[in-house]
Amino acid sequence: MTATLARPEPLDALALARAIEAGTLTCEALVRRLLERIEAREGDVKAWTHIDPGAALDAARTLDRTPRQGLLHGLPVGIKDVIDTADMPTRYGSPIYANHQPAIDAAPVAAVRAAGGLILGKHVTAEFAHRVPGETRNPHDLARTPGGSSSGSGAAVGDGMVPLAIGTQTTGSTIRPASYCGVVGYRPTFGIMGIVGVKPSSPSFDTVGLFAGTVASCALLRDALLEAPFTLPRGDGGRLRIGVCRTARWDEMEPATADALEAAFARLGVVAEVRDVALPVDMSRLAKAQRTVSAYEIVRSLASERRTHYHLLSEDLRNGRLAEGQRIDHTTYVAALADLEAARAASADWFDAVDCVVAPAAKGIASLGIASTGASTYCLPWTALHVPALSLPLPERVEGMPVGLQVVAGRGRDLALFDCAQWIADRL
Amino acid sequence: MTATLARPEPLDALALARAIEAGTLTCEALVRRLLERIEAREGDVKAWTHIDPGAALDAARTLDRTPRQGLLHGLPVGIKDVIDTADMPTRYGSPIYANHQPAIDAAPVAAVRAAGGLILGKHVTAEFAHRVPGETRNPHDLARTPGGSSSGSGAAVGDGMVPLAIGTQTTGSTIRPASYCGVVGYRPTFGIMGIVGVKPSSPSFDTVGLFAGTVASCALLRDALLEAPFTLPRGDGGRLRIGVCRTARWDEMEPATADALEAAFARLGVVAEVRDVALPVDMSRLAKAQRTVSAYEIVRSLASERRTHYHLLSEDLRNGRLAEGQRIDHTTYVAALADLEAARAASADWFDAVDCVVAPAAKGIASLGIASTGASTYCLPWTALHVPALSLPLPERVEGMPVGLQVVAGRGRDLALFDCAQWIADRL
Repeated sequence: MTATLARPEPLDALALARAIEAGTLTCEALVRRLLERIEAREGDVKAWTHIDPGAALDAARTLDRTPRQGLLHGLPVGIKDVIDTADMPTRYGSPIYANHQPAIDAAPVAAVRAAGGLILGKHVTAEFAHRVPGETRNPHDLARTPGGSSSGSGAAVGDGMVPLAIGTQTTGSTIRPASYCGVVGYRPTFGIMGIVGVKPSSPSFDTVGLFAGTVASCALLRDALLEAPFTLPRGDGGRLRIGVCRTARWDEMEPATADALEAAFARLGVVAEVRDVALPVDMSRLAKAQRTVSAYEIVRSLASERRTHYHLLSEDLRNGRLAEGQRIDHTTYVAALADLEAARAASADWFDAVDCVVAPAAKGIASLGIASTGASTYCLPWTALHVPALSLPLPERVEGMPVGLQVVAGRGRDLALFDCAQWIADRL
Repeated sequence: MTATLARPEPLDALALARAIEAGTLTCEALVRRLLERIEAREGDVKAWTHIDPGAALDAARTLDRTPRQGLLHGLPVGIKDVIDTADMPTRYGSPIYANHQPAIDAAPVAAVRAAGGLILGKHVTAEFAHRVPGETRNPHDLARTPGGSSSGSGAAVGDGMVPLAIGTQTTGSTIRPASYCGVVGYRPTFGIMGIVGVKPSSPSFDTVGLFAGTVASCALLRDALLEAPFTLPRGDGGRLRIGVCRTARWDEMEPATADALEAAFARLGVVAEVRDVALPVDMSRLAKAQRTVSAYEIVRSLASERRTHYHLLSEDLRNGRLAEGQRIDHTTYVAALADLEAARAASADWFDAVDCVVAPAAKGIASLGIASTGASTYCLPWTALHVPALSLPLPERVEGMPVGLQVVAGRGRDLALFDCAQWIADRL
């Protein structure tokens, strides 16, 4: 059977949405196709924590009978299992919540439904969207990690099990799995996209994160979540001004991935106004402040779990980030917040000088084994600065595995970021 | 009976904590005293949505048998009913949640319990901590509003039903009821105090808000929530530099309250280095940006309720703030966020030039009737700027009603704010 399966490939949600709108595809037919793919692949990939085929088909038939409700009408969407759903269990990747059923939908889930989208199921997440992974494997090589913490989201979209998914990002939990799984991943400007009903980790950095097969498909999900009209990303603008930021830690990159990115930078140099740029803030200091704040905050976010279910938290979490966070005093935390605020202010002009910045999405391809979901080194500066970022799969692979290019813009310039990403995608 | 009742007066939580620690007071005896007060007064004041006397006494006896756990050992605390409690219903002031029982405690509730505090019950809130009030009345005059949206919190602490309470503030929901009810109210620097498990309204402004009888008692609750050692506010520092900020809308103040505040400013002028200061940012522009952001965000925060229970939202909310928020497009919202960020940056030096700023807490005393909880005019600038604020009851009353003086400091200077408030309280 396996030999006859199509290779993992993300779907084009925008094309599917248009086919549904045109009447050439039904939601039911689409869901059947996805369920077949999931049936064939889930035993290997393990991307889902909950899926109910019968309920999904019922919901699909209902949507097929319903007048078009919005941007996502008839489109199935997967939801990371740290995001509340009123009709599906939500376990936050923790045994503490083995039997947890939220009372209401998180805001992004409600927005998907309001736009006519269908919640297909829940995706595997690392424990509380932090580090300890579930069993998900990379659809492009089952021996490798899909990345995390939005592991199931990246794997399911990368495999073509679902066209769209909503994950989260606190440091690199969307950009990294998107890079590893060969899909578009988008982390919005901090604070602009509703996160109510998403289990908090570090509220100073937590955002939702979107997964899609193409830049335009990702924009469709973005606009549904913003409850805004759809703005198709435009790749036809004039010559872009692109800053190439290898970051101060370029020497830590895996050589083959560094080469692939250098080749992409060189190709962009032919068509765009490209120049090397260095972050105007000290990356180590930024990393230290980010680490202080996120460790301090996860301790407070898990206050209830620490008190009543301490032994059900993983040893990695207890002895790692929580122990670290409990050693940080309030004055140190407040000073780190001020450091971050100063870094954001100091980098505002830097972003204004270009249309976008391109940078690595991860230090290499997905590593072998699933015990670790990889490092956030190259996501940390952008999440700390609260700017929007998008991982775009390069057309070339490294050792047969996908590699992402991270495209970044200034705070609040999310729509422009998508235009830049489309422009770059059209030319790479 | 009523004639023999003590007049409404807040309790001194720090003195009670010390008596419990010294063994001269048991938690059980304290809870009995509070239950008697509640029994006598609740029929009139209506501050509570949930209280279970038997369970409270059981919990008190357990705490009396337990070694001291932390700063709040044996102290009863009331919780605003937009804050999740694992063992008490939580209704968010909305009929949508008439039967809602959260699975876990909100972070501040868990922190209270971890510090040995006793959750005495839940306090009346306006619908989703917004505008439509419950039935609570001002304990100092039952014909008047207690303020809101933390109506029950202010009223219960003001009446002496409970020594401490945790409410919330998005614009003025803690400072105003504290002023109206004659208690200390504290709104922390935005973002520094865990808010996980508190029903979100406008995540760009939402904070918890604390209620206590004295500045030092409020600091005790503050430090329990920060999981920090107790720092007693010091009123013995040298001559303070105090900025008096009447704000650009001083002419809207009720004359008798304005006179009381002017008298306080004059008394401070004798002991401190006092000067008039004007906000370095345009108050109308700040108010407009704050309004844009909070209206846009409440729409997204209530995405699920809008979709599934629209008819159970109040008409005031539907036709007011939600309709307003739905008319705001994403670009306008992002521009307003940028305006606010610029205002915060522009006012940082202004705060550095003084130890604290004093300003009105509300435009007057609690108004007659309970249909409106009052205006947030004099809280809005400080909440928009993300700075910490504390309402301190003036020793004099106006028409027999309490009046609060709002003390404000720069971002992150919460401990210094308490020192200033104690300094001022000692000298007024």
